[in-house]
Order: sequence, then structure tokens, then C-alpha cells
Amino acid sequence: MSIEEKYIPGLDGVIASETKISFLDTVQGEIVIKGYDLIKLSQTREYLDIVHLLLEDRLPNVEEKVAVNNKLKQAYQIPNGVFEVFRNLPHETHPMDGLRTGISSLAGYDDKLEDRSLKVNKERAYNLLSSVPNIVANSYRIIRKMEPVQPKEELSYSANFFYMLTGKYPSPLEEKIFDLSLVLYSEHEMPNSTFTARVIASTQSDLYGALTGAVASLKGSLHGGANEAVMYMLNKAGSVAAFEENLYKKLYNKEKIMGFGHRVYMKKMDPRALMMKNALKDLCEKEGNDLLLQMCEAGEKIMESEKGLFPNLDYYAAPVYWMLGIPISLYTPIFFSSRTVGLCAHVIEQHENNRLFRPRVLYTGERHSLPN
Amino acid sequence: MSIEEKYIPGLDGVIASETKISFLDTVQGEIVIKGYDLIKLSQTREYLDIVHLLLEDRLPNVEEKVAVNNKLKQAYQIPNGVFEVFRNLPHETHPMDGLRTGISSLAGYDDKLEDRSLKVNKERAYNLLSSVPNIVANSYRIIRKMEPVQPKEELSYSANFFYMLTGKYPSPLEEKIFDLSLVLYSEHEMPNSTFTARVIASTQSDLYGALTGAVASLKGSLHGGANEAVMYMLNKAGSVAAFEENLYKKLYNKEKIMGFGHRVYMKKMDPRALMMKNALKDLCEKEGNDLLLQMCEAGEKIMESEKGLFPNLDYYAAPVYWMLGIPISLYTPIFFSSRTVGLCAHVIEQHENNRLFRPRVLYTGERHSLPN
Ligand SMILES: CC(C)(COP(=O)(O)OP(=O)(O)OC[C@H]1O[C@@H](n2cnc3c(N)ncnc32)[C@H](O)[C@@H]1OP(=O)(O)O)[C@@H](O)C(=O)NCCC(=O)NCCS
Ligand SMILES: CC(C)(COP(=O)(O)OP(=O)(O)OC[C@H]1O[C@@H](n2cnc3c(N)ncnc32)[C@H](O)[C@@H]1OP(=O)(O)O)[C@@H](O)C(=O)NCCC(=O)NCCS
Repeated sequence: MSIEEKYIPGLDGVIASETKISFLDTVQGEIVIKGYDLIKLSQTREYLDIVHLLLEDRLPNVEEKVAVNNKLKQAYQIPNGVFEVFRNLPHETHPMDGLRTGISSLAGYDDKLEDRSLKVNKERAYNLLSSVPNIVANSYRIIRKMEPVQPKEELSYSANFFYMLTGKYPSPLEEKIFDLSLVLYSEHEMPNSTFTARVIASTQSDLYGALTGAVASLKGSLHGGANEAVMYMLNKAGSVAAFEENLYKKLYNKEKIMGFGHRVYMKKMDPRALMMKNALKDLCEKEGNDLLLQMCEAGEKIMESEKGLFPNLDYYAAPVYWMLGIPISLYTPIFFSSRTVGLCAHVIEQHENNRLFRPRVLYTGERHSLPN
Repeated sequence: MSIEEKYIPGLDGVIASETKISFLDTVQGEIVIKGYDLIKLSQTREYLDIVHLLLEDRLPNVEEKVAVNNKLKQAYQIPNGVFEVFRNLPHETHPMDGLRTGISSLAGYDDKLEDRSLKVNKERAYNLLSSVPNIVANSYRIIRKMEPVQPKEELSYSANFFYMLTGKYPSPLEEKIFDLSLVLYSEHEMPNSTFTARVIASTQSDLYGALTGAVASLKGSLHGGANEAVMYMLNKAGSVAAFEENLYKKLYNKEKIMGFGHRVYMKKMDPRALMMKNALKDLCEKEGNDLLLQMCEAGEKIMESEKGLFPNLDYYAAPVYWMLGIPISLYTPIFFSSRTVGLCAHVIEQHENNRLFRPRVLYTGERHSLPN
């Protein structure tokens, strides 16, 4: 049977792209980002370093990092028309849907929209990195009839994002942990949203369209939506015993437990989840309250013994964001905002060396004939 | 080499889904739609028959067709907030981007948004079939500061769509040809936009998200955007001689010629294109002016002899829409509107039997190590 004839549901294990951006090396146990192990990067570097690495192909020196920071700050403001769009969305709009609509509407402001050159695509990527945190925070606020919040240029990129989400300046520990979460979410090979963005870009469609599709993908509960779902589970339970009971019930009903499992590292813990677990420990210690940590660890034990499944990043990002005081329905938009840089890198790579994605199907329906 | 290790750019020939919806049978030369040959269907049936076929699994009888028509008419109106969104998009917004933003914004009005059941998904699909023509026409008008146009319930589905696009009632010939174009665009196996929609839906994301991504995909010039591009080429040339000259120039510069080629029937004419070519002949005859037909035929000859390439549907849909008096930048939105039914059928099928799309990559970048 040739490759073209074998059907593998979900393209599990199928190579869809050649890439110089990232790779989950399960043999050496590394999340390779432009050659570096993401976990090691996360121990010594910040989100803006990763931005430079992904868009400029190497880690920045001190001046370069300052330059990226300044470039991003210059474009923090978004057009007033985008705010007006948010004012006209129904109050019930999910933040991911507000974000999706906002990014989609940005396209009309780009006076080089038809230009797919590397140079313009990169400028566009930086602009999006400036705009997306603002869109995330203010689509949420405006749809809920709150006043928009202005970016604070005196803060770091991550501290400003945190401020816009929560209305307060982060403590040094909060800033560090929030930035770490952005690093960990920044890029991760070919998850569904990245694949969506590349598939769309392969028609020669633009970056806004590719990112709009990626928001739609990330919203799903099997993907980015899992971090919110985890927090609802934890809150609903409220105690270790209730959480354990709820998990057993779900397992008994053959429900999927959000925050566990991963196509690529199914039988091992997502190394990013461990980093977030450590951050959760730090926050619990600071607060003198480790209930969420205890609940999560109890869940971890049950899932390992009952299903042989391990936590993914979303499982531990959820309680961390909760302890940072971030509204639950912003967890997935934050994931998206951080991933914007990875998505842009992939769209740029796709545009630079393109072939249209256009697979085939296995037809299992009937055949009828019609009278001539 | 196992399937998982072989990399095929663009997933050319790779089977991505099992489906009972449609199939390009290149052996028997049929575009199979729920078992029937699309070309034969297009000779005896109308767009609403195809809608029923795709969403209800069989061709409708007379009463069922009336019922579909009535159901669709009942939901022609779209929320005023969506119009307000359009009022706040910049004047330069491309109609596909207006459409994308409009569909994205619709999600907030769906009070069963989290329900992915077959029943609710189907209701949602019918609602979208009612709304999309209105969104297409009025996003275009409002962004250009024109008054919105109201749907006319006394007209057929296709005649109303035509009226909303052009401001005039179609003649019987115009209505027939416009409806034919909708039939031909309605469904076509697994092109990039359908694949995008299924990839997004596989995260358990909703129909609005999947369709928003599909609009983004369809916009690209290698996909639906080709019909507009063809018309700009034809208009720019203005005569057979100039068109021929322009084509030779483009071929010499190794540019791709829009409206030619197709991944699946690369070495044969797209059978849908032939149907549209015949419609173009009818329109030319009616008008007593066959310039566009002559230009297109001249292009066909050059492309066959120089490249062995044949027209696809977009090549002949473009001059047909031109002769129907439809603004060029609405051609791709019309393609989308017609394809809405096919996309909905695919998203529903994906939700009914889901596995997350999550392929792998071939990493060709470097490896570095960081100091510990
Ligand atoms: C991430 C995920 C979609 C990967 O899935 P996949 O590669 O398609 O694997 P499958 O869904 O086919 O799962 C394989 C088996 O493990 C089980 N499984 C996987 N994840 C599970 C989970 N979170 N809870 C319970 N069972 C799970 C499946 O039920 C299936 O069992 P079966 O073979 O008896 O049917 C899946 O693990 C999942 O749905 N996790 C929960 C959502 C989540 O946290 N997403 C964020 C990912 S970063
Ligand atoms: C539809 C399309 C994307 C399918 O492409 P594909 O399966 O990825 O095939 P490729 O683009 O790899 O093309 C294969 C070869 O044919 C050539 N080719 C394909 N379509 C061509 C076109 N329209 N004009 C000129 N050359 C074309 C390619 O240049 C390539 O030649 P090469 O091998 O010498 O590089 C392609 O035919 C195309 O771009 N057409 C124009 C856009 C269009 O009309 N799209 C609407 C499709 S319904």
C-alpha cells in the first residue's frame, strides 16, 4: 500500500512540513526551538529573547533585545475602529471569538496587505506582537462594558501584558512567572493551530487570515481551550477529595480529562508542565496556601495510575494563571498571544517556500446514478 | 521508509479524511457528491437540491425543497450588531476580510454555541446558509458606505442573492446561470478551505471558527482568490491580442497563470469549467458580444500548448460573473457563500467522528547547546 493510499486519522505521525523552526525530539527529550532546548531557554531567557530567536534566527544580544522591546512598544496602540468593533459584539461573545474578530478586522488597516515578502511579513509579525496583548485585554473588557485599559510603556512587555489583563502591576515574582508562561507557550512544533495557520498561508493568503484561523483552532477544548477547562474543573471541585471524586466519575463515564495527554509525548509528562508546576509551588509558598497544588498533584496520581496519562502544559498553566489573578476566560487568549510569535514564524516560513496543502479523501459513501 | 517518515509537500495525494460527502473520481471521471455526479446534478437540479442533499443525505422531493426554501428565508435577517461591525471596518477592507470578520462575529449570537450535537450543528448550518449571502452583500456595501440592501423573500434563494449583489432582479437566464454557478461551487472534496475547516473543527472548535478559517483560506490567490485574479487579467488586457501577449509574458517570467491547473485534475479540464464555459457562451450570445469568450478560448489554447494545463472552474466563473454585472471583488465571497453548505457538511462529519489533526514535521534546522 503506497503512502497515498493509507489513511491515518488525524495525520498522527504524518510529516506535513519541513521546518527550521522547532521540533519535539522525543528521543533526546528536547523541545527544540531554532536549535535550542526550550526548557533550558526558559531557565535563562525571557519572552523577548524567544521573539528575537524566532523572528531573527538567533538569540539577541543586550542592544538587540532593547531594540525589540522599543519596536514593540511603538506599536502598542490599536486603531480605534477595532475598539468600535468590540463595542458592537454581543455581550456573550467568548474572549477567543472577540480576539478572532479583532485580528480579522486588523487586515483592513494594513496598506501593504498584498505584500508577502519576508521583510514586510516580519514587520507585520512585530506589529501583531504589539497589538495582540492589547486586543486580548481590551476585547475582553469592552465586550463586558468595561473601560478599555491603556498600555503602560514604562513596563516590560510581559509586565504590561499582565497589567492590561489584571489592572495591577505584577510583583517581581508574578512578572517572572507570567513571562515564563509566555516563553513556554511561545512555540511547539506543529500543533493543530500552527498547522491551521500553515494550511491557510499555503493558498498565499495573508498573515491575518492565517492567525484568525489559528485562534479558531486554539479555542477548541482538545487544544488551547483545555487550560480554561482545567480551571473550571478545579474550581468546581474546590477540595482535593471532591476533585478526586470528580475525576473518577469522569473516567468511569469515559470522558476525556482536560489537561492530560499529548499526541507526541503521550506516555511522559510534558516538560513544560513541570516548569509550570514549579512556578505553582513558588506561588503557593508565597501565598501560604497550597490547595491548588495539592489538588493538581492528586489528579496527576490518579491519571497516571488509572490511564497512564501525564499532565500537559495547560494542566499547570491554569492554576498558575488563577493564582496570578487572571480571569479564567483569558487563559486561552493568553496562550494565543504568546504563540503569536511561533505562528508568525511558521507563516513566514510557509510563504518563503510554499506548496499548497491539498490532500485527498477516502470515500466511504454510496454511488448512485441519475437519469440522463 | 514508513509512512510516518516520508514527507510529501502539500500532502499531495495523502489521504487526510474518511468521508461520505464527496470524492473526485478521476478514474470514472466523476465529481461524486453524496453518491451523485455533480455535473449531472447541475443539469437537472438547483442549488437548494444540493443543500438538501448535503445536509439531509438525499435529494429532496417537491415538498422538502419548499420546506428548505422557507426555512432559509425565515433566517435571512442578520443581527444589527453585525452591520455595526461592518460600519467600523476601514474603507479599504477586502470583501473576503469583511466576510471573515462578519462570520467570526456571528458566534456571539449563538446561545447554543457549546452544543456540537448533530441536530444543533445542522440548524446552525441552515442559519449560516441564510445569513452568508446577506453578510457577503452587506459587508461589501456598508464598508463602501452604501446603504444596506434588504433580502427579498418573494425571490428564490439564488435570485435573492443575485439581487442583493447587484441591486437588480435577474432575468430567467441570469438566475439560471447564477444558480448553476452556486451548484458547481457547492462542494468539491478536500480543497484547502475544506481541509482548513476540518482541521479547526477537530479541536472541537465550533462551526463559526471553522468557517472563519475557511474564508481565510479561500481568499488566497492559489485557491478561491483565483476567480477575481482571472477577471483582473481579462480586463487589463481588453482584447484577444493583448491577453495572449500578457499570458506569454507571464509564462516567460515563470509566473503562475490564475484559473489554470488543479492538484487533482492537472492534465484534464475541470468538468465544472466546461459547464461555466457553456454558460458564458449563452450570455455572450444573448448580449451579442463574445469578446470575453474569445479571450478565454485564446488563453485556453496557449496554456494547453505551452504548459499542458487546463482551465479550472474559476477561469470561466470569472467572465460569467462579469457578464452578470457582479462587482469583481465579490467573486470569491460568492464562491465561499456557495461552498458554505459543503463546509458545514464537512464540519458536521468531523464533529460526528473526530480525531484531532496533529501532524509532525521534518526538522532541518540546526542544533545548539546552551550552558547549563
Ligand atoms: C491532547 C489529545 C487531544 C491528544 O490526543 P490523540 O493523540 O488524538 O489521542 P486520542 O484522543 O486518540 O487518545 C488515545 C487514547 O488515550 C485516551 N486519552 C487521551 N487523552 C485523554 C485524556 N485527557 N483523558 C482521558 N483519556 C485520554 C483516549 O481516550 C484514547 O483512549 P482509547 O484508545 O481507549 O480510545 C488528548 O490527549 C486529549 O484530548 N487531551 C485532553 C485535552 C487537552 O488537554 N488538550 C491540550 C493538549 S496540549
Ligand atoms: C491549483 C494549483 C495551486 C495546484 O497546484 P499544485 O498541485 O500544488 O501544483 P504545482 O503548483 O506544484 O504545479 C505543478 C507544476 O505545474 C505548474 N503550474 C501549475 N499551475 C500553473 C499555472 N496556473 N500556471 C503556470 N504554471 C502552473 C507549476 O509551475 C509546476 O511546474 P514546475 O513543476 O515546473 O514547478 C496550481 O495549479 C495553481 O497555482 N493554479 C493557479 C491558481 C488557481 O487557478 N487556483 C484555483 C484552483 S481551483
